[in-house]
Amino acid sequence: MNLLDVSTPAALIDENRMLRNIARMQQRAHALGVRLRPHIKTSKCLEVARRQQAAGAAGITVSTLKEAEQFFAGGYPDILYAVSIAPSKLARALALRRQGCALSIVVDSMAAAQAVVDCGRAEAHAFDVMIEIDCDGHRSGVSPEHAELIEIGGLLHRNGARLRGVMTHAGSSYDLDNPQALERLAEQERSRCVRAAERLRAAGLPCAEVSVGSTPTALSAANLRGVTELRAGVYVFFDLVMANVGVCALSEVALSILTTVIGHQAEKGWVIVDAGWMAASRDRGTQRQNIDYGYGAVCDLDCNPIEDFILSGANQEHGIMSRRDGRAPDAIGSAIGCATACATGQAGIVERFPIGTRLRVLPNHACATGAQFPEYQVLTAGDSAPALQTWSRFYGW
Amino acid sequence: MNLLDVSTPAALIDENRMLRNIARMQQRAHALGVRLRPHIKTSKCLEVARRQQAAGAAGITVSTLKEAEQFFAGGYPDILYAVSIAPSKLARALALRRQGCALSIVVDSMAAAQAVVDCGRAEAHAFDVMIEIDCDGHRSGVSPEHAELIEIGGLLHRNGARLRGVMTHAGSSYDLDNPQALERLAEQERSRCVRAAERLRAAGLPCAEVSVGSTPTALSAANLRGVTELRAGVYVFFDLVMANVGVCALSEVALSILTTVIGHQAEKGWVIVDAGWMAASRDRGTQRQNIDYGYGAVCDLDCNPIEDFILSGANQEHGIMSRRDGRAPDAIGSAIGCATACATGQAGIVERFPIGTRLRVLPNHACATGAQFPEYQVLTAGDSAPALQTWSRFYGW
Repeated sequence: MNLLDVSTPAALIDENRMLRNIARMQQRAHALGVRLRPHIKTSKCLEVARRQQAAGAAGITVSTLKEAEQFFAGGYPDILYAVSIAPSKLARALALRRQGCALSIVVDSMAAAQAVVDCGRAEAHAFDVMIEIDCDGHRSGVSPEHAELIEIGGLLHRNGARLRGVMTHAGSSYDLDNPQALERLAEQERSRCVRAAERLRAAGLPCAEVSVGSTPTALSAANLRGVTELRAGVYVFFDLVMANVGVCALSEVALSILTTVIGHQAEKGWVIVDAGWMAASRDRGTQRQNIDYGYGAVCDLDCNPIEDFILSGANQEHGIMSRRDGRAPDAIGSAIGCATACATGQAGIVERFPIGTRLRVLPNHACATGAQFPEYQVLTAGDSAPALQTWSRFYGW
Repeated sequence: MNLLDVSTPAALIDENRMLRNIARMQQRAHALGVRLRPHIKTSKCLEVARRQQAAGAAGITVSTLKEAEQFFAGGYPDILYAVSIAPSKLARALALRRQGCALSIVVDSMAAAQAVVDCGRAEAHAFDVMIEIDCDGHRSGVSPEHAELIEIGGLLHRNGARLRGVMTHAGSSYDLDNPQALERLAEQERSRCVRAAERLRAAGLPCAEVSVGSTPTALSAANLRGVTELRAGVYVFFDLVMANVGVCALSEVALSILTTVIGHQAEKGWVIVDAGWMAASRDRGTQRQNIDYGYGAVCDLDCNPIEDFILSGANQEHGIMSRRDGRAPDAIGSAIGCATACATGQAGIVERFPIGTRLRVLPNHACATGAQFPEYQVLTAGDSAPALQTWSRFYGW
């Protein structure tokens, strides 16, 4: 079995690259003196999580209760469900906890805290709860300075829930692209979450855990004083968005789409491949970044980028591969003569990428691209020639 | 079981709306004197296809061989695989045909035609083949005037393949938004595909089938003289992109996402819901259209749009619902006084959409949103109160 025998499109993991990414983040957490709780929403794959655990991760973070259920069944009892809980989901969370899952849930409002308290009282159950802190105005969470923070903590603590601590996510880090700004945001994420913890403790409330993280801030923090755990997800694969943010190189991206050339529109410089948006996802996360990769960066079978070829367009099952600068190599070729064109690397795309050619495409956003596939094809790590394995992943809620 | 008991996020089908959409397209095909071969890539669901078949559809169109396999197993033997075949997929297509599936494959180049001929010869098998025509420069296909068209037809016909006809797809119709332009493009799609058929026939080659279609052109064609069959997919659900194109009303969109309010950022006018991009997909198809709906248009539980509330932002499992014009209702409310605010419909979003509130979100692109879900929850048709059914769908390749 090799890459020429795999049915396309396929989601390929380069395990060597992935293991290096896992080791890098684990070393960061160790150096910063915190536990690492990887966010498995990126892979939704037990085999990937096993490698994170083997490297030293402590527990996992999930984005859905289905992830919690699947990973608890797969041997991961220590789980943080990092999305503010909907009252209608409490019964399902409770069922998991009664099976022995150490599931922590999250709230960021009095209304949600009240729902947790009410359910806990009705069911005679003490939920483990974290309060989400807004550290950067990105999305959810209560301000570390807001009176409601103490009210939420008090409501939980005095009514039978176990207040475990505070958590935040500096999601706005995805909009940055220089190390100084990233380090500043990492410090803001740390300091605001720690500040929230201090306010809770000063009010006489327990707050053992201080959990922060996003892949860019995790890799940029100068220190994490007062923090107990780090959460990050996409680092396990990395992607083009992270490369533009500046926290990885293209050669570290461990997920790619294997695709096959199925046609050409030579005069336009288009190669048609069998990876459209159903494979790549509709994520255009690089659209407003320094380098817009369209729907992905095109690589050869060894995962080396081919000049500036990208998936410039995507229909459901058709991808359009062309140069990022829009030049049609064939048109240039015929204008300046074939010998010159070939010598300058502008040879006709029909000859260069004939029908049946296999290529790999680096994704804009590994979480979104992975989600399009029922399984990964894995180029396994090791000294010998890599073998191919299939690792399943799941979807849905 | 009602909508308050369904786990969220969920993909909801309104069967009454869907049946009206199916009837409308079937009546169009009948009036235009052509067969309708629905593209089931939109739903990937046998229950949906059964209703299209019951209304009079003849065969189906698919975008992947997995769709072909699943639907053949589900009782649909007449299948057009409408993506130019990769040579490495011929063995799988052949396996289906040897099981009795009347699968037609598509080519748009000499290289692909040669691969079909070579495989047919090696396997002593006559493939049914259509030639894809480029009618609008959108994507794939051979020009109707190009010499290669006759060469491809000749290569297939003289080397053991069955040349069934020509097919085209005016995908650029998604970029239009007025009836006159749509009717012109429909005529271009028709005339260029018919022209290709006439050229093949004039060269002594068989060309029984002339297959055209996209939802917008199918609903806009004045006539389909010379055409034998119409293909369309997204009409079964419709979506916001189609509403902007002008071929459906919002009240005809049959697919929505059921979601639950999980938080607020009141001063920003944000309601946080549990439908992020994992539910909505990353499709931003309305971004460059007349009305940009963000990640979807927010509706009440009866699927009536709520003013101009949209999903203005989406993370993996968080959606940010706010007004399309960016006004923060709470800010307005506190500026002009609550009584006035309530009277003008600008009441605070926390009171108006409390945590636990159920909402529905119309998708930009039904094909992309549906693909995020393992199943549909269906509000079934009928005179009595609608019941809820679960219909499964599949994914992958």
